[in-house]
Amino acid sequence: MTSRQKDSVRASAATRRQFIGAGSAMLGGAAIAVASGGKAAALDASADPNGPPNIPEWMKQPGADVGSQIYGTPSPFEKKVVRNVPKKLKQYTSASSRTPLQELDGIITPNGVFYERHHGGIPEIDPAQHRLMIHGLVERPMIFTMDQIRRYPSESRIHFLECSGNPGFEAIYSKTASDLVGLLSCAEWTGVPLKTVLDDVGLKPGAKWIVAEGADAAALTRSIPIEKCLDDAMLVYSQNGERLRPAQGYPLRLLLPGFEGNTNVKWLRRLHVVTEPVYSREETSKYTDLMPDGTARQFTFYMEAKSIITRPSGTQKIEKGFNEITGLAWSGHGKIAKVDISTDGGKSWQTAKLQEPVLTRALVRFRFPWTWDGKPTVILSRATDETGYVQPSFDELKAVRGLKSFYHNNAMQPWKVAESGEVSNANVKA
Amino acid sequence: MTSRQKDSVRASAATRRQFIGAGSAMLGGAAIAVASGGKAAALDASADPNGPPNIPEWMKQPGADVGSQIYGTPSPFEKKVVRNVPKKLKQYTSASSRTPLQELDGIITPNGVFYERHHGGIPEIDPAQHRLMIHGLVERPMIFTMDQIRRYPSESRIHFLECSGNPGFEAIYSKTASDLVGLLSCAEWTGVPLKTVLDDVGLKPGAKWIVAEGADAAALTRSIPIEKCLDDAMLVYSQNGERLRPAQGYPLRLLLPGFEGNTNVKWLRRLHVVTEPVYSREETSKYTDLMPDGTARQFTFYMEAKSIITRPSGTQKIEKGFNEITGLAWSGHGKIAKVDISTDGGKSWQTAKLQEPVLTRALVRFRFPWTWDGKPTVILSRATDETGYVQPSFDELKAVRGLKSFYHNNAMQPWKVAESGEVSNANVKA
Repeated sequence: MTSRQKDSVRASAATRRQFIGAGSAMLGGAAIAVASGGKAAALDASADPNGPPNIPEWMKQPGADVGSQIYGTPSPFEKKVVRNVPKKLKQYTSASSRTPLQELDGIITPNGVFYERHHGGIPEIDPAQHRLMIHGLVERPMIFTMDQIRRYPSESRIHFLECSGNPGFEAIYSKTASDLVGLLSCAEWTGVPLKTVLDDVGLKPGAKWIVAEGADAAALTRSIPIEKCLDDAMLVYSQNGERLRPAQGYPLRLLLPGFEGNTNVKWLRRLHVVTEPVYSREETSKYTDLMPDGTARQFTFYMEAKSIITRPSGTQKIEKGFNEITGLAWSGHGKIAKVDISTDGGKSWQTAKLQEPVLTRALVRFRFPWTWDGKPTVILSRATDETGYVQPSFDELKAVRGLKSFYHNNAMQPWKVAESGEVSNANVKA
Repeated sequence: MTSRQKDSVRASAATRRQFIGAGSAMLGGAAIAVASGGKAAALDASADPNGPPNIPEWMKQPGADVGSQIYGTPSPFEKKVVRNVPKKLKQYTSASSRTPLQELDGIITPNGVFYERHHGGIPEIDPAQHRLMIHGLVERPMIFTMDQIRRYPSESRIHFLECSGNPGFEAIYSKTASDLVGLLSCAEWTGVPLKTVLDDVGLKPGAKWIVAEGADAAALTRSIPIEKCLDDAMLVYSQNGERLRPAQGYPLRLLLPGFEGNTNVKWLRRLHVVTEPVYSREETSKYTDLMPDGTARQFTFYMEAKSIITRPSGTQKIEKGFNEITGLAWSGHGKIAKVDISTDGGKSWQTAKLQEPVLTRALVRFRFPWTWDGKPTVILSRATDETGYVQPSFDELKAVRGLKSFYHNNAMQPWKVAESGEVSNANVKA
């Protein structure tokens, strides 16, 4: 262990000790304030921590019946935890909505706020009418009904999905974690390994790419290397236990763990096995990365390692004393190995705790105990994945990629904490 | 390896080989029937697997806008996947609704169909007004606001919840998996380890039990041993990423992984630290097990190892040939070690595959490849947990517990497969 590492460990232990003491005093003090009719006036002054608390109104009469919601919804007090939809777009058919990351906990994104990106709107598909055709360089071209797809042996896996423009290079000045990287969600997916179905149809020699087509009005089309199709690709029909939501490809989507979002073709209707990519719109004029020398990177499928602090984050406000720093890390290349946290604008780093289970190509929740001294500072997180790849700063990314790029920005996100406790984006336009 | 084990391995390998062959032929045949305008008439006869399939109506015009649902809901074609609510109850304030297990995949229960059990209806609580009091044998009695609870260091964990009457001893003749064991769900929970908060308030000598009280009209009250409170108990505010649903205790519930459902007190308002249990209604006249000798088991907190096949299951229909047998296993005592499947009414058993990650006190999805020969039979599953405990048959359970019991029935569930392919409950009233 180097002396720098030792310092880091000592600092971490000190922070932890400080929390137990400071947290206790803080909470004790606050609780007394509440009980004495201070700050939180809602509780009647007669509430005494040595006797039972007052009876709130909602205990004085029976609540709503069981099954009053045969399909439940969140509390009316959680109205703000919804998809983050841009307000001033020209049209909403080819557009996106974002997951409210700063309002969520854990790694599972509830289906109601899973991010959306559509290129021709959301079709309403009758699953009894839906078909998947597999043709081209195969021994036995086939058309499958959903019932036939569901008869195959199934698998369930937890994976993230992320749009490659999350955020675009020009959008790094947005306010909230959701505005910045809310085109990111994670779910438990169930379906059939694509390899199982390809084994059944039988690939012919020369089968190098599979062109996937969606049954939306855009007929969204992407070319996928055969290696991925025979690895961990899945034909997915369920998400977090229930069938896919319409906005997520109901009744069938392609899942390519770690690949950029739009390759995970929704409303999947066709797999055309071919020798060369089809060079569709979404892999030529869109979803390519223009480099400083004027050439373009193409087929940049895997999303690189990335992380973001979701609490505290932009537009939130913290108080002096103990504050847990928590957020999400992920990598298209496999497992997250480590997340480092800086609370001094990147001068020094300490290792955050990763919540088990740490799964491959899934979101990972990280946590770091922090006692804020009340002085202005900048906090940020930095992910390292199991390949050893380290998430870059925006300056490091810019040095390689220039500023003509739009997609595949995986830079660190710095948050500024003001003396008032207000948290805002530390990326400021020059 | 014993010769019996060897036979079992060989049989399993044979089944797998058979699937690849039989599955391929079956699907090939079915696909050809579709393409030639046969069985599935919905697809136009001109659809040719060597050319692109016909364009369905939903591709001919743009679909719904992005953000047309700022909080998404399932497809209208999934209307039947809702909570299973008893239709002829005297009242619905103290009642339950069940998770439609046979319609779900994976291990995560979506929040919309998480099972309910209420004793005084579902209160609508304003989180800004909600308080948690901790008093009794503590150094520093305190009243917490939700903001104060949320300032503590957090954890996220995936655990199941199960009602102890799932099903009651007299209810083993019900039709569907949901009717039988639908008082069972699983979620990723986020909150504060209760130990962290108890360390802050400081337990006094003699602190042996904690009485937890809910803020519902029933003021549901249960006594919890201090050992559990200092082990893996949590104060939980989030479920599958978002805040708890009102029916699940919004804004705060107690989570006691592996303990019977009602001890996981919802709408948690009070923790009273004491030396003896309070002997509340729900731990005396209810939630005790009357034994054959007239005595009653009390405080039977941990739910024993259990499993159920959810597909194929009661009211479903299968076809001859390959059918995946899949279902759920769980144990309050820790991890599931193994699930065995019998497809001959319990005469012989083979080991199912468990979906990773296998987590402690969480649902585990098991799968077993089965080729049905078309003859009537009975299928069933049997769970073994990491303590070595093996799930009993109903006869084995009855021999120990008699028939005066209602709660804690963890017997195996046999499903009868008729020659027609119709699946029904093999438990038949004598």
